Amino acid sequence: MIRFDIISAIPDFFNGPLNTSIIKRAQDKNLVEIYVHNLRDYAYDKHKQIDDRPFGGEPGMVLKPEPFFECIEKLLAEKEYQNIVFTSPQGIIFNQEIAKKLSLERNTIIVAGRYKGIDERVRERFATLDVSIGNFILSGGEIAAVEIIDSVIRLIPGVLNDSESALNDSFMDGQLLSAPVYTRPADYRGMTVPAVLLSGNEKLIKEWKVKKSIEITENWKKINRME
Amino acid sequence: MIRFDIISAIPDFFNGPLNTSIIKRAQDKNLVEIYVHNLRDYAYDKHKQIDDRPFGGEPGMVLKPEPFFECIEKLLAEKEYQNIVFTSPQGIIFNQEIAKKLSLERNTIIVAGRYKGIDERVRERFATLDVSIGNFILSGGEIAAVEIIDSVIRLIPGVLNDSESALNDSFMDGQLLSAPVYTRPADYRGMTVPAVLLSGNEKLIKEWKVKKSIEITENWKKINRME
Repeated sequence: MIRFDIISAIPDFFNGPLNTSIIKRAQDKNLVEIYVHNLRDYAYDKHKQIDDRPFGGEPGMVLKPEPFFECIEKLLAEKEYQNIVFTSPQGIIFNQEIAKKLSLERNTIIVAGRYKGIDERVRERFATLDVSIGNFILSGGEIAAVEIIDSVIRLIPGVLNDSESALNDSFMDGQLLSAPVYTRPADYRGMTVPAVLLSGNEKLIKEWKVKKSIEITENWKKINRME
Repeated sequence: MIRFDIISAIPDFFNGPLNTSIIKRAQDKNLVEIYVHNLRDYAYDKHKQIDDRPFGGEPGMVLKPEPFFECIEKLLAEKEYQNIVFTSPQGIIFNQEIAKKLSLERNTIIVAGRYKGIDERVRERFATLDVSIGNFILSGGEIAAVEIIDSVIRLIPGVLNDSESALNDSFMDGQLLSAPVYTRPADYRGMTVPAVLLSGNEKLIKEWKVKKSIEITENWKKINRME
């Protein structure tokens, strides 16, 4: 069984994301365990303070080191963790290779930052991997934590049923995006499904899909300036 | 007031993400309205079926066109929407420029896909923007919807308080990542904050921050192969 421990200052964020769809089912099937730790539970001063002003005099608040040290050290005393992932703009941009790598490990801690960030000493001491989810600014690492968990869980054998199998998904098949998909009705208000898909001719269907995949992938590279 | 309408097959996903932190506060302050529409409420056949097998004979399920047409047309009849965003691997990878653009618009619909995807006729008819969140496979567009909303809301005047102001955030300042941050205690178990940050010398502090920002940004470019 694969296990995730998330450390967050807003644990309620995860109420929906960890209790719906494939992430819920994977837990129900005992293929994955996910624990959310409330950072505030590890603040031992009388005000349960988790943040404070930054040294160096700029505005904003920084998450204090002590609650993270307390929480992470408690986890490490109980169990071996192969990865301690920090979600941070300075990290490697998350991709399917990282998801694959994490899906082969057993226990992963994900640390979600907030505000101006986490006191750097926490990252220096514990981080095995810094992950960014892209070139945009979010209020916290919670969304990134859900992304990481969702993409990793899909790769664990037994999580997806046959018809959901990840094998046909975009990006798995030689980095080609999928062709467009259509379902019933074949004619909806005069908008018809491409005739080839209704032909029953497997060879022509395959050719159409490959052609469309290449078109879509080339277009994707162009709009994302990757060629 | 800016408004988001999300169309999703698993509306419960949003329970936490839309009701915590800055997204919650922006709604409480009446700076943003967010509505989540359950796709299933727009399936009018007796089984409330929202998905069906794809034409062309591959495994997996495709989200049917009718519920999306019904839901989107209902919204468009009530209000003008400047953007109808589809979350899809074939889209432009989300970035801060897109967030800025959306923050200047009034009403945005976000359509979250699931399974093998949405019948292509829906996208062809309605999409004004296809957005991907990166090179990895997720179970649905719900996570992307939260990312988009969070990053856009932060840019709306009045949402962040002074100390949270987005102006100092990573990526805003000439594409430089932020320097590491530190807070009290200055000495935590022998791990000390860089002396310059305690010096009170604004010029030296500024120089240190710029130097660190450049180092971190150069490192980020290297690990993400962007140079």
